[in-house]
Amino acid sequence: MGERVWGAASHAFPLMKGQTTISTTAADTKKPFEIGVYSFVELTPDPETGVAISPTQRMANLLETIELADQVGLDVFALGEHHRPEFISSAPAVILAAAAARTRRIHLSSAVTVLSSADPVRVFQDFASLDLISLGRAEVMAGRGSFIESFPLFGYDLKDYNELFEEKLGLLLALNEGERVTWTGKHRASLDNLGVYPRPHGEKLPIWVAVGGTPESVARAARLGLPMALAIIGGTPARFAPFVEYYRETAAEAGHDPARLPVSINSHGFIADDSQQAADDYWPGFSLIMGKIGRERGWSGITRQQYDASRGLTGADFIGNPDEIIEKILYQHNLFGHQRLMLQLGLGMIAHAKAMRAIELLGTVVAPAVREEINKRNG
Amino acid sequence: MGERVWGAASHAFPLMKGQTTISTTAADTKKPFEIGVYSFVELTPDPETGVAISPTQRMANLLETIELADQVGLDVFALGEHHRPEFISSAPAVILAAAAARTRRIHLSSAVTVLSSADPVRVFQDFASLDLISLGRAEVMAGRGSFIESFPLFGYDLKDYNELFEEKLGLLLALNEGERVTWTGKHRASLDNLGVYPRPHGEKLPIWVAVGGTPESVARAARLGLPMALAIIGGTPARFAPFVEYYRETAAEAGHDPARLPVSINSHGFIADDSQQAADDYWPGFSLIMGKIGRERGWSGITRQQYDASRGLTGADFIGNPDEIIEKILYQHNLFGHQRLMLQLGLGMIAHAKAMRAIELLGTVVAPAVREEINKRNG
Repeated sequence: MGERVWGAASHAFPLMKGQTTISTTAADTKKPFEIGVYSFVELTPDPETGVAISPTQRMANLLETIELADQVGLDVFALGEHHRPEFISSAPAVILAAAAARTRRIHLSSAVTVLSSADPVRVFQDFASLDLISLGRAEVMAGRGSFIESFPLFGYDLKDYNELFEEKLGLLLALNEGERVTWTGKHRASLDNLGVYPRPHGEKLPIWVAVGGTPESVARAARLGLPMALAIIGGTPARFAPFVEYYRETAAEAGHDPARLPVSINSHGFIADDSQQAADDYWPGFSLIMGKIGRERGWSGITRQQYDASRGLTGADFIGNPDEIIEKILYQHNLFGHQRLMLQLGLGMIAHAKAMRAIELLGTVVAPAVREEINKRNG
Repeated sequence: MGERVWGAASHAFPLMKGQTTISTTAADTKKPFEIGVYSFVELTPDPETGVAISPTQRMANLLETIELADQVGLDVFALGEHHRPEFISSAPAVILAAAAARTRRIHLSSAVTVLSSADPVRVFQDFASLDLISLGRAEVMAGRGSFIESFPLFGYDLKDYNELFEEKLGLLLALNEGERVTWTGKHRASLDNLGVYPRPHGEKLPIWVAVGGTPESVARAARLGLPMALAIIGGTPARFAPFVEYYRETAAEAGHDPARLPVSINSHGFIADDSQQAADDYWPGFSLIMGKIGRERGWSGITRQQYDASRGLTGADFIGNPDEIIEKILYQHNLFGHQRLMLQLGLGMIAHAKAMRAIELLGTVVAPAVREEINKRNG
């Protein structure tokens, strides 16, 4: 199934040691385990009915799901940044600000901010504004992006893919560090002791680095002492355990305390009262989008058989009833000792009522059970 | 008093004809007269007490004032884009999105989007997202900006001040015109048949051009057939009537129907139950900011005597009790036959309760009286 995965599973991990579990004490932050939802905010027609809703209705539905996620006690809601007709979230901070006004407690993040083709100054301003609006609930999840549409759109060259990210992440961190910044780089105008405003509500914005599974990306996040969001959207999750170990080891070598560096696992997921129903509801949109993206990228797509296999305990996708989701989270917690799980509830269109029910189950059934068990494990 | 004004009053108008009134039929759009409020979202200490509130509190206060403006039936709320420690609004679309979630009817605009140093693609995406969130209440007010902080911050050269604006306005309009755009310019990467998403709720975003009083800017807005927001923040408003006439003449010559091109007058203002109280409340922050900006720009600042004179019927500032504000709006409507008034309620810090009262008076006393009278005039 490696061919349907971008980033992660298409790379062999060079430091693989055969180890598949990690002591949870390695990154025991003693905070309750966090469960969140992320979305690219799809605008594809309902694959069963062929009916497409308007972008306005899609936006209203999204805001309702974030409001519900807050009400049922989920910890984070995150939005992708995409520049294609299938998605309406190209300006995550703008949408998240509307969500901030309708929520009380939930953290609001990008997933991801495509930093390589963005201006870190604008990104900082957008999320600092969001942080003021939300009383400190803003987060940035920076990544290189798995889609490449933003490069021609904003005038960047794919040959600079890695250098752009490295440089812009450096600037974003500098802006987060203090009010006035002096900075020089290759891909953005220099700053000569300039201030960037507003400053956030908190002393600093939480900045996560999202990685798709290249060891270089893992090591960069670790050396910078930044929280890591690891995308596992295919293949066998157990194979990713060494990435997490490598992250913590590299962070420690660089002088950072791994216990203070949370790890998030970001995966596809969908929850319904009945396991088969969850699978059947998620499949049409998932297969449509995976097929479309797969064709663009030269993959073979995904068969229903592969999909059903991915729902098993050792597979990557969190698609099932609440008990299955709880079991898989706890299984993966044994592998990774991670602090957060982010589920992409819907890839391709999911009927709004079903998405709402999935969020309700995640917040009211899955999250309490997972928090209680992991709290025990963390002692 | 010309020395305290940027843009407008420091330029003699070359086509001045001595005419100070214009027939309202020239731009009679038959829509009710619109009254709005704009703010740069100041973060200066209270000039009387020396106490500064936090950026978070300032943001909360702002959102409360926008909510009230909506409740009392004002038509527009607009936010500036500034990159200085005295202001917290550097990302207007983000803040406006939070306001959209708390309001029902009021239009939400920038005032202004400093387009010269922005990327029109991001601007379009931000405001199209806002338009979806607000069910079609987003507007862009594009301007060259009266402050220049954004140029070094985003790597632009002030020598390109006018060319940057012209080129970027052209791209913004092209993005608004249709989904896929092919475009080439000097100051931004080309677009080769690329789509920009999301598309707005309405067919197009309303795009206004804000002008400070240079005839070239007036003519540009007119030739492009775009609504014009004319800043009158000093001097004698009657002297601006020929600008408005020039705008309508130029628009007509370019083939646009002036009756379909609204004009907004944007001015400083503050309203209290008592005229003297309004003047005394507005003065400390106003003189502080005007003095500070004046020093940066080599002006002489403003004396209390000049300030008091500006409050008279023929002066530029709308500072007084509701009757005085109504009278001045109607006086100016005789001069300009305009369709909208935008008041900057507070330049420098105004106590929150006083700003709320000013908005209440503007919406409940001033706006109904003005709409009724202008409705009669428009027949």
